[in-house]
Amino acid sequence: MALRPALTPVVAALPTMVPFVGPEAQERERGRAFRARLGANESGFGPAPSVIAAMRDAAPEMWKYCDPDSFELRRAFAAHVGVKSTNVVVGEGIDGLLGLVVHMMVSEGTPVVTSLGAYPTFNFHVAAVGGRLVTVPYENDRESLDGLLDAVRRENAPVVYLSNPDNPMGTWWEAHELVRFMDALPETTMLLLDEAYIELGPKSAMTPIDVSRPNVIWFRTFSKAYGLAGIRCGYAVGEEGFIRDCEKIRNHYGVNKMAQVAGMAALEDQVYLAEVTTKVAAGRRRIAEIARDNRLSPIESATNFVTIDCKADGVFAQKVLRELIERDVFVRKPMAPVLDRCVRVSVGLDHELDIFAEELPRALRAAAGS
Amino acid sequence: MALRPALTPVVAALPTMVPFVGPEAQERERGRAFRARLGANESGFGPAPSVIAAMRDAAPEMWKYCDPDSFELRRAFAAHVGVKSTNVVVGEGIDGLLGLVVHMMVSEGTPVVTSLGAYPTFNFHVAAVGGRLVTVPYENDRESLDGLLDAVRRENAPVVYLSNPDNPMGTWWEAHELVRFMDALPETTMLLLDEAYIELGPKSAMTPIDVSRPNVIWFRTFSKAYGLAGIRCGYAVGEEGFIRDCEKIRNHYGVNKMAQVAGMAALEDQVYLAEVTTKVAAGRRRIAEIARDNRLSPIESATNFVTIDCKADGVFAQKVLRELIERDVFVRKPMAPVLDRCVRVSVGLDHELDIFAEELPRALRAAAGS
Repeated sequence: MALRPALTPVVAALPTMVPFVGPEAQERERGRAFRARLGANESGFGPAPSVIAAMRDAAPEMWKYCDPDSFELRRAFAAHVGVKSTNVVVGEGIDGLLGLVVHMMVSEGTPVVTSLGAYPTFNFHVAAVGGRLVTVPYENDRESLDGLLDAVRRENAPVVYLSNPDNPMGTWWEAHELVRFMDALPETTMLLLDEAYIELGPKSAMTPIDVSRPNVIWFRTFSKAYGLAGIRCGYAVGEEGFIRDCEKIRNHYGVNKMAQVAGMAALEDQVYLAEVTTKVAAGRRRIAEIARDNRLSPIESATNFVTIDCKADGVFAQKVLRELIERDVFVRKPMAPVLDRCVRVSVGLDHELDIFAEELPRALRAAAGS
Repeated sequence: MALRPALTPVVAALPTMVPFVGPEAQERERGRAFRARLGANESGFGPAPSVIAAMRDAAPEMWKYCDPDSFELRRAFAAHVGVKSTNVVVGEGIDGLLGLVVHMMVSEGTPVVTSLGAYPTFNFHVAAVGGRLVTVPYENDRESLDGLLDAVRRENAPVVYLSNPDNPMGTWWEAHELVRFMDALPETTMLLLDEAYIELGPKSAMTPIDVSRPNVIWFRTFSKAYGLAGIRCGYAVGEEGFIRDCEKIRNHYGVNKMAQVAGMAALEDQVYLAEVTTKVAAGRRRIAEIARDNRLSPIESATNFVTIDCKADGVFAQKVLRELIERDVFVRKPMAPVLDRCVRVSVGLDHELDIFAEELPRALRAAAGS
């Protein structure tokens, strides 16, 4: 074989993998569209009409580069959470921001602590720089604060990842419990607190943002409650020195101009947000009901999805998943041991949940029979 | 001082810098808006009406995550340049794609060859991973093919960056000269060929895309001729194995859904593209005329800007730049030795070029007198 340009040793050793297979790829493979899109924790309620209007108005302006400082956006986000603009960095969704922080803090062999079965895109970023993932099993379907703390101490890890509320289980910790966790964390360990779903759960789960802590970063996004998954806009909040350090390697033109417009408009429409959170709560109740009607156990959720215990092993839940997909219902499932007994169903529109209600018993029968 | 989480040694050693200060930041500092936006090589002609319509139609769909495979977009780009989808990867503009390839191929100490004064965002990405930049001076305001080749051989560099047509000088190499360069390149050196401006120059500068070469990547963007700088959509074309390797660390949701829609629509409207390239050529002639009217020397350009030799040193050109900005004309200038005797003026709308024509003589007089 001819010589060719070499990849870095870290990248050369990586498998070709993707954190998620998109529903579009599944539709192409199946040769037909899903009837219910309930797998990616998107918001079928969509962005606010005010946000749609703002995007439409901005379309002719897309010839301009975005403001690389995201000045107005940062000011708006800062005001929203009660900090200064210098405590805020914007990014291409939480995905992009997690990648940024990982590239700032993790290099070959750096131990990084997360939960076994937590957000795969974070793990993907860690792998990209050759970090060493240390995983801690969930406990009673929640990420284990004690377990994470033990692992951090044992490994002297500079980074620990935690989502609250959690994905893929939908469970959460109350703010006071998380504050205790933060207090106990070594000061040389950075907590990446992924709050992608925070607007959808109880207020009591919302940890007060305290930028005097130099070792906690809060991550927020417009992908979930705000209904803008496709626009890639998120922000991170933290201590000023760390936020300034982000400038060293940040992709300054990464958040596109349409995302800046949409994020700004979305934040301004808190009335719409309140309507959506109410609808999401109703959707969660409906999914839980459907689960119970089929003698399954819904896990209480603070997110826009409900993870359903199928009351058997991972093999059975995988069959349920496959049967739902066969019936044109796009859902996903946790893959880690113990969690893998579940399927995960996002809140969707009423007619989509009707389809789920209709197809779940059939899928269960087929899974049991196969 | 209290202990805090550590950055990687590479990132810790980096200065806090940005490749570009946006015009918005300058406007905030000055307390007033620019009257002519001629500094960032954007297209004031804007995106095609068909593209604006497509973006408007798509706005309500932004609740969905983008297709992480960009399946249709890749197919369209591939058809456009006559390769297979498996030869194409999409990214957040050329910036994002350069970052991707740098992270794949460059680690601490890796020598990377570029021209002294070439695209700073590429250098920024190389610095982020601790690569060692080896810079080659321009020759007669063109990137030096012989010089780059010598440096590559001397340093045994796995990566060399070249833009054709060039930014910031606007000059170019004919395709047959570049093919000779490619042929001479060691097979272990990857050429990153940045063709951001390729649609705007002579056809003879367009190197035939040949994906049987495993050591050349062609980069294209919608930021320039297509008038979509704000949308962050670009693509890279290369040998299938390398493109597949991109999946190992690529941000799969990085190109947002609006960018996918806009890129697709833009590619379809080649009539509009032809109109814009005609207008850009007229704008270049106008800028050159204005320069000559002021006894300056415009450099022949294959891009959407004209770099103007101010016929003195870098200090003088810097004064001219400052005086133009004082007069609300946003322009930029090359900073590297020799090139720094110039200012760079993007093609804009007629009324903006009128303002430039009016203000340039005043700026020159003020610069000469200061």
